[in-house]
Amino acid sequence: MFITLEGSEGTGKSTQAARLAAYLIQAGYPALLTREPGGTPISEQIRAVISDLKNTDMQKRTEILLFQASRAQLVEQVIRPHLAQGGLVVCDRYADSTLAYQGYGYQLFDLETLRPLIQFATGGLTPDLTLLLDLEVEEGLRRRAKGGEWNRLDAYELGFYQRVRQGYLEMARSEAQRWVVVDATPGLDEVEQALRKIVLERLAG
Amino acid sequence: MFITLEGSEGTGKSTQAARLAAYLIQAGYPALLTREPGGTPISEQIRAVISDLKNTDMQKRTEILLFQASRAQLVEQVIRPHLAQGGLVVCDRYADSTLAYQGYGYQLFDLETLRPLIQFATGGLTPDLTLLLDLEVEEGLRRRAKGGEWNRLDAYELGFYQRVRQGYLEMARSEAQRWVVVDATPGLDEVEQALRKIVLERLAG
Repeated sequence: MFITLEGSEGTGKSTQAARLAAYLIQAGYPALLTREPGGTPISEQIRAVISDLKNTDMQKRTEILLFQASRAQLVEQVIRPHLAQGGLVVCDRYADSTLAYQGYGYQLFDLETLRPLIQFATGGLTPDLTLLLDLEVEEGLRRRAKGGEWNRLDAYELGFYQRVRQGYLEMARSEAQRWVVVDATPGLDEVEQALRKIVLERLAG
Repeated sequence: MFITLEGSEGTGKSTQAARLAAYLIQAGYPALLTREPGGTPISEQIRAVISDLKNTDMQKRTEILLFQASRAQLVEQVIRPHLAQGGLVVCDRYADSTLAYQGYGYQLFDLETLRPLIQFATGGLTPDLTLLLDLEVEEGLRRRAKGGEWNRLDAYELGFYQRVRQGYLEMARSEAQRWVVVDATPGLDEVEQALRKIVLERLAG
């Protein structure tokens, strides 16, 4: 079973991915936690190029292709082999992040332009379950800033994160059997319990 | 005018690209020499990931996507701005290398699978003129090895380079107005003169 966590800023996605994987491992499932971009030595080298603050002139097309390169390596080297052995993978972000951020968010490229790139990078591997942590944008940015700085964001940035959120919700609606939308407004522990319940039901089903 | 040089191993491609650009610059053309993968600081960082000998487990999909990422950055940051100013670009390898090596050579992915990736990376920018340096494979490998080691290649490698050569020739036939095939068997100076003549005719035409 291949489970991905998606969501925009400040939704607690990485924390929840780690807690979920830890819980599943303790419960005896052969679970593995990984993240995107990254998760293999080569993918981390690529992540370093993407994240390098000196690379201010990185073009959007370059960035999108680097995300796909990092993904391709993670899929082939970690995710597919683990799934093939009957394992369970929990991944903090996956292909839907490209559609949400670089598609809906940037509004520079059609989803239909991005899909063949994702298809190539993943070799067509789609999650069995995608947990979308949904949160009001301003609240997410407030949490990320730990109380104060989010209002420095300009209108473009706010609009960007709103498009990302709406994009996620649209994808979740259009493929309802794969996605489960979870309200991330409550505290971390409450959301953790909600996610655990969803996953255990799927594993039992 | 956007000129690319293509060809397989030992054809003298990089030397000829440099000589051609130097000649054009001295003749007063606003020419710029660049190479793939590389040509910008970000593209060189990507080239370093591709070329790192420690990255032995790099997946083919990852490699292909990294080449496209490097290309996207070079196109947007160097090639397009220079052409937009009326400049002339000489590029040592470009998108056709992906089709020749990763398409015809590897035989893992259809050309139709690779084309959307290239289209995205280049934003559709196609050379005005592509000079193919064509050489018998064994002779190219002999030259590259500077006299002796080429016969250590196994049958797979020889077959690979033969497919690359045939792929180049096939592309040149199918798009004859863009490609000019130049026999790279003669010495460097003779080939240099042949390339110069072709380019000057195009520039005059």
